[in-house]
Amino acid sequence: MADPSERIWTAALAVIGDEILSGRTQDRNVAQVAAWLNVQGIRLVEVRVVADWEEAIVEAVNQLRARNDYLFTTGGIGPTHDDITVDAIAAALGVGVVHHPEAMAVLERYYATRGGLTEARARMARVPEGAGLIVNKVSGAPGIRIDNIFIMAGVPHITAGMLDALTGTLEGGRPVVSRSIGGWIAESEVADLLRACEKQWNDEGRGGVAIGSYPFFREGRVGANFVVRGPDAALVDACLADLAERLGAAGYGVTAGGV
Amino acid sequence: MADPSERIWTAALAVIGDEILSGRTQDRNVAQVAAWLNVQGIRLVEVRVVADWEEAIVEAVNQLRARNDYLFTTGGIGPTHDDITVDAIAAALGVGVVHHPEAMAVLERYYATRGGLTEARARMARVPEGAGLIVNKVSGAPGIRIDNIFIMAGVPHITAGMLDALTGTLEGGRPVVSRSIGGWIAESEVADLLRACEKQWNDEGRGGVAIGSYPFFREGRVGANFVVRGPDAALVDACLADLAERLGAAGYGVTAGGV
Repeated sequence: MADPSERIWTAALAVIGDEILSGRTQDRNVAQVAAWLNVQGIRLVEVRVVADWEEAIVEAVNQLRARNDYLFTTGGIGPTHDDITVDAIAAALGVGVVHHPEAMAVLERYYATRGGLTEARARMARVPEGAGLIVNKVSGAPGIRIDNIFIMAGVPHITAGMLDALTGTLEGGRPVVSRSIGGWIAESEVADLLRACEKQWNDEGRGGVAIGSYPFFREGRVGANFVVRGPDAALVDACLADLAERLGAAGYGVTAGGV
Repeated sequence: MADPSERIWTAALAVIGDEILSGRTQDRNVAQVAAWLNVQGIRLVEVRVVADWEEAIVEAVNQLRARNDYLFTTGGIGPTHDDITVDAIAAALGVGVVHHPEAMAVLERYYATRGGLTEARARMARVPEGAGLIVNKVSGAPGIRIDNIFIMAGVPHITAGMLDALTGTLEGGRPVVSRSIGGWIAESEVADLLRACEKQWNDEGRGGVAIGSYPFFREGRVGANFVVRGPDAALVDACLADLAERLGAAGYGVTAGGV
């Protein structure tokens, strides 16, 4: 049984960077942050992609941090003039920017064999006043944590390293479990069946499962995958089994795990 | 010379769908919509990914349509119960939902040889009252246009077909031109050089170029690509040439077009 009083932990993600908005770079961080959050029992409920423009970052940060348990950001923490995330978040919080002593020490060690710690490189030790650090095992500059905001790199494998360092450190709830089935089925033929199935598994106080329908076109044929999601694994499994049975009874062949 | 009075046309994109926020599906629409908009002379200035949840869609739609020339949405216009984009946008606009006669005719033709137009399929002819259609050459159901909002499919190749149908129909300004150079350069070594170059090309009323710095790690080495962007191609070219010369004079080898 789903517990209606169960606390749901939410997060938002702000992807910061002109290169995503110009189409130059295909974002990879939304999917990886989403998948990681889910394992922590935290739901990613909104994402914004914002330009390298202080006002836009301030607005997004202040809206998103206020209404979510956690806010993650990616991008804009490098050494160059277009890296303005730290200044913008400090402005959003109304605090100053300082060089974090531990970050300075990390960068001094990292650059000792790479030409030394220049002023530009020391920019990467700048943090909003009062912030802590997120370990970066991949390259030099650490990520930054302040209040409920986690400021991470934009380069996906560095972001991945920072997420790895945060694994298990954030309070969350039960992870959302998701299970899929799929088939060479036009979703429009089974729309009523899907709706009825989802409704039945949410009636009678059993709430907390959602069925998503994701059509595709492949090898010249239409198909769809159906994903059942919810925090209660037993309920998700039962709903999925029922859905498979309904589809089978209607004459559709389905494959566990999706097509 | 950049004209400071030049009108800049802006667009926002709302990507609608739990499958993006859960990490199940890697979004492809941000990059393709961004690239397409740029050719139309319209700048994508913000993106939001929102859940299949009416309140969230209404909020995003109302904020984004009010402060941009155009709002595009992708996702949530299929035949199943989790496709709620049309209802949410109608709610945002304060209008009802009707079956569009031309969309009904399109769907009747499309499904004539595919099992007929069922009630579920006719859902895809539902539009906010007063809307027009966007041609879909790829599959059956059309996209929808109402006011400054363009409602498109979530499946990327169908979205692409709808963008194709809109090509050249929207008023825009000069496209932003972008040119790249790159090299096996640690961006932290050239941060001051980049800043000085951008500043100089924006002083003396020549404004309107931006330099972005995008580091990468490849084959065990660090490198960076530098992108100069702006609406004035001659200015962008001149700035890029100057940047290449400055990097060369500082002893860095660079490759036109990026590394």
